[in-house]
Amino acid sequence: MKHDSWKIGEHTLTSRIFLGTGRFPNPFIQNEVIAASGSEVLTFAVRRVNTEAPEEDAILQHLGDRTLHYLPNTSGATNANEAIRIARLARASGLSNWIKVEISVQDETLLPDPIETLKATEQLASEGFTVFPYTSDDPVLAKRLEEAGAAAVMPGGSPIGTGLGILNPYNIERICTSLTVPVIVDAGIGTASDATKAMELGAQAVLINTAIAKAKDPVRMATAMRYAVEAGLLAKKAGRIQERMYATESSPTLGKVH
Amino acid sequence: MKHDSWKIGEHTLTSRIFLGTGRFPNPFIQNEVIAASGSEVLTFAVRRVNTEAPEEDAILQHLGDRTLHYLPNTSGATNANEAIRIARLARASGLSNWIKVEISVQDETLLPDPIETLKATEQLASEGFTVFPYTSDDPVLAKRLEEAGAAAVMPGGSPIGTGLGILNPYNIERICTSLTVPVIVDAGIGTASDATKAMELGAQAVLINTAIAKAKDPVRMATAMRYAVEAGLLAKKAGRIQERMYATESSPTLGKVH
Amino acid sequence: MKHDSWKIGEHTLTSRIFLGTGRFPNPFIQNEVIAASGSEVLTFAVRRVNTEAPEEDAILQHLGDRTLHYLPNTSGATNANEAIRIARLARASGLSNWIKVEISVQDETLLPDPIETLKATEQLASEGFTVFPYTSDDPVLAKRLEEAGAAAVMPGGSPIGTGLGILNPYNIERICTSLTVPVIVDAGIGTASDATKAMELGAQAVLINTAIAKAKDPVRMATAMRYAVEAGLLAKKAGRIQERMYATESSPTLGKVH
Amino acid sequence: MKHDSWKIGEHTLTSRIFLGTGRFPNPFIQNEVIAASGSEVLTFAVRRVNTEAPEEDAILQHLGDRTLHYLPNTSGATNANEAIRIARLARASGLSNWIKVEISVQDETLLPDPIETLKATEQLASEGFTVFPYTSDDPVLAKRLEEAGAAAVMPGGSPIGTGLGILNPYNIERICTSLTVPVIVDAGIGTASDATKAMELGAQAVLINTAIAKAKDPVRMATAMRYAVEAGLLAKKAGRIQERMYATESSPTLGKVH
Repeated sequence: MKHDSWKIGEHTLTSRIFLGTGRFPNPFIQNEVIAASGSEVLTFAVRRVNTEAPEEDAILQHLGDRTLHYLPNTSGATNANEAIRIARLARASGLSNWIKVEISVQDETLLPDPIETLKATEQLASEGFTVFPYTSDDPVLAKRLEEAGAAAVMPGGSPIGTGLGILNPYNIERICTSLTVPVIVDAGIGTASDATKAMELGAQAVLINTAIAKAKDPVRMATAMRYAVEAGLLAKKAGRIQERMYATESSPTLGKVH
Repeated sequence: MKHDSWKIGEHTLTSRIFLGTGRFPNPFIQNEVIAASGSEVLTFAVRRVNTEAPEEDAILQHLGDRTLHYLPNTSGATNANEAIRIARLARASGLSNWIKVEISVQDETLLPDPIETLKATEQLASEGFTVFPYTSDDPVLAKRLEEAGAAAVMPGGSPIGTGLGILNPYNIERICTSLTVPVIVDAGIGTASDATKAMELGAQAVLINTAIAKAKDPVRMATAMRYAVEAGLLAKKAGRIQERMYATESSPTLGKVH
Repeated sequence: MKHDSWKIGEHTLTSRIFLGTGRFPNPFIQNEVIAASGSEVLTFAVRRVNTEAPEEDAILQHLGDRTLHYLPNTSGATNANEAIRIARLARASGLSNWIKVEISVQDETLLPDPIETLKATEQLASEGFTVFPYTSDDPVLAKRLEEAGAAAVMPGGSPIGTGLGILNPYNIERICTSLTVPVIVDAGIGTASDATKAMELGAQAVLINTAIAKAKDPVRMATAMRYAVEAGLLAKKAGRIQERMYATESSPTLGKVH
Repeated sequence: MKHDSWKIGEHTLTSRIFLGTGRFPNPFIQNEVIAASGSEVLTFAVRRVNTEAPEEDAILQHLGDRTLHYLPNTSGATNANEAIRIARLARASGLSNWIKVEISVQDETLLPDPIETLKATEQLASEGFTVFPYTSDDPVLAKRLEEAGAAAVMPGGSPIGTGLGILNPYNIERICTSLTVPVIVDAGIGTASDATKAMELGAQAVLINTAIAKAKDPVRMATAMRYAVEAGLLAKKAGRIQERMYATESSPTLGKVH
């Protein structure tokens, strides 16, 4: 597979998979998954990492040799101030200038708080962070996050860990067509076709964690996801046929909502 | 990509794509598409081929060097007798022992006739053909076709040429779990995620024609489809996570109908 | 509610609900449900009724005073001959000239057998029965059943008792537009909106059993269903707005597949 | 139909339909629609009404005799301040203490701005208004609006005027179960089954405008909608059956996402 490259700020990436690290059975499987998925970006919760001495951290040291981008996230934060504090801590420890803003007050769903997420994004962008806000699929909010300085916007397909896929393709497609920064579908991906679909809707990448980490065979699922995003990206570029009610010439084309 | 192999009768295949040949802009693009898709099986209407001298036929001679399986189809037939006659003609001309039974009385939709399809399948199987009936997604009919001697059963995802994808995943999944011969989803595939989905539902392969031939960039779409079926096959084998209402431990798993 | 009337053969009906009788907690609730739903047609399995002396049968005697149409069904039959025998038995006992053909070889799903159903429909129509075949949503098969003399065709929305609603609205709509006899959506209705949808797709009526009989409050659900079919029927006649991508004038209308 | 009553603040309502007034062919049809729908609440854009002398206004004077609640809306506002100004104007002219907050910066979709909507809701609630914010289906934002003092929350099913129905039933159901104030599904309703569905998901009412005003027969569609909401409300209360993969006893129940 020859991947087209794409950009986050000044960084050039080729892989379309951001990989969550939270739920793997062990670090060895995680490493195999990283290889199989081809992922170049790993996200992890700052609170789970030893920020005093990141080079000694159990999660990170297994990743030492690869050229991976770290995307620390603020999960656990319940408001903008907490998220900002966590972001500064991550940067101070030398982990990364990138930060995924993840703010939730709902323990049950971990759905993001729109107001606090926007506030944190604004502040962190103004401090020079490369900010990746995790957000709902509200198209107006997504636009607002871009205007606030987000380097990419990460709408959820469905709540974290549910595997319900993309509940509202209309909104995801709308976000992808109206933003100029990359859109990364985050949360809810359950299987390969969800990832393919996300790319067909116009996403630049997907973030996957549970769907790989908790699959019966995580490494094989990681490979599946690598093909899946590639398939969706190519299909989007290839220009799919329009839906029709019937195949006959006289049949009207359909503008189906996917 | 290392593909697992699978079997149709005594033939071993590795590709999961059957390619329709009816609608390509020209034979050169068709050849590039064959290469890009990795397809090993080409289907074509017998009535479109010069069965008197197949080696001189414009469609077939471009394919001369490759080791491809030909799957002639009976499209144009409106009843079992016509289909049987076409099948015998194809075999007599040395094209193939394989035959795709395609019988329709509805010009608008080209939906298959269940009764005549079953009749033709029975007869042709008894004559030693390797029979691939194109059928609706009726699970009982699919089982009947298997019992009648079909080497594989080809339920439509949606009507030919519509690109509407898989209208009834429940039925396709039911067919895949209750048959022992391979299931090949035929008709209706519109884009890559449809192909991925078909494989996740348990299909052994997909037949694609319009979605590739009429895409803006057929060769790129052919590549997309190759990745798409691979992604779906691997995801199926990897064992996807169960859907949950929420990610929290107490949340019940969902047996969602896909 | 003033209902428009419709016809099955020479009988004029006003209600749009056919009621199954198999699963009610007791005959008294069943009677209340009949009243609340406004149903004029009751279906029941002939094998469950005392055909020797139907006037003494526990199921039927509770219904004595109302002007209800009985629609005996052949459930339990596994082939055409059995169904034909049951139909003749029902007629001989004076129950009804109407017969719902229900033939299944799959105990798990009770999905109808297309071949045997068509055979029984042909035979029984030729014997002067008013035949209501329960069938899959295969549009070609539905047309075949009409041609074989069915007085109405009853495609399933989803398998009996599942409550999964209408799995393939495309097929149901196609059947409704291509048949001239009434279409009655049978099986799979789970809640009110499924019934509304069935009528919007063009059905003349719905058959409901489990969704009412096994609801927590069957009588209230029966009332809900009465409103639901009326809502769907009126909406269909009122001519719904077309879907649009956006509301603005320039936005193209969508021919969404429902 | 005997409707159960419900409450908005101290007002008791029986109808479940809020009616938009913007798009009717003429006031006479509008009046017939009001009667047919049974609606008790009319919403209209303040900018379209003569607030200097509302009793002489062309829209309102046709409604003079009925006991209707007026729900002025702030459509046209692009930020909180404009919305607040319009609300005060409406109250000052004696129209109503109720105000529907509708703020959009996107002319194409008229999707609501989450930040400004929350700001206006907070302010207007603190000034004693009965506030009905029109919002996206973001569950966290909906909760925030309740906490800010909204008397009811009005999530959109899909963008205004599209008729696309409820794009994300999961989110609407989540909002209905997590809020204590009434939820009124606003925008996107296209036909009767959409309204039935909204009520089954737990909404207390729906707001309908285009689906009735632009139907081929608006009065008939208004009647359809009246039955539709009643059907959905009753079905919700009646306790629907659970979905199952098959009807057989051993089949697991499904927690399908609707």
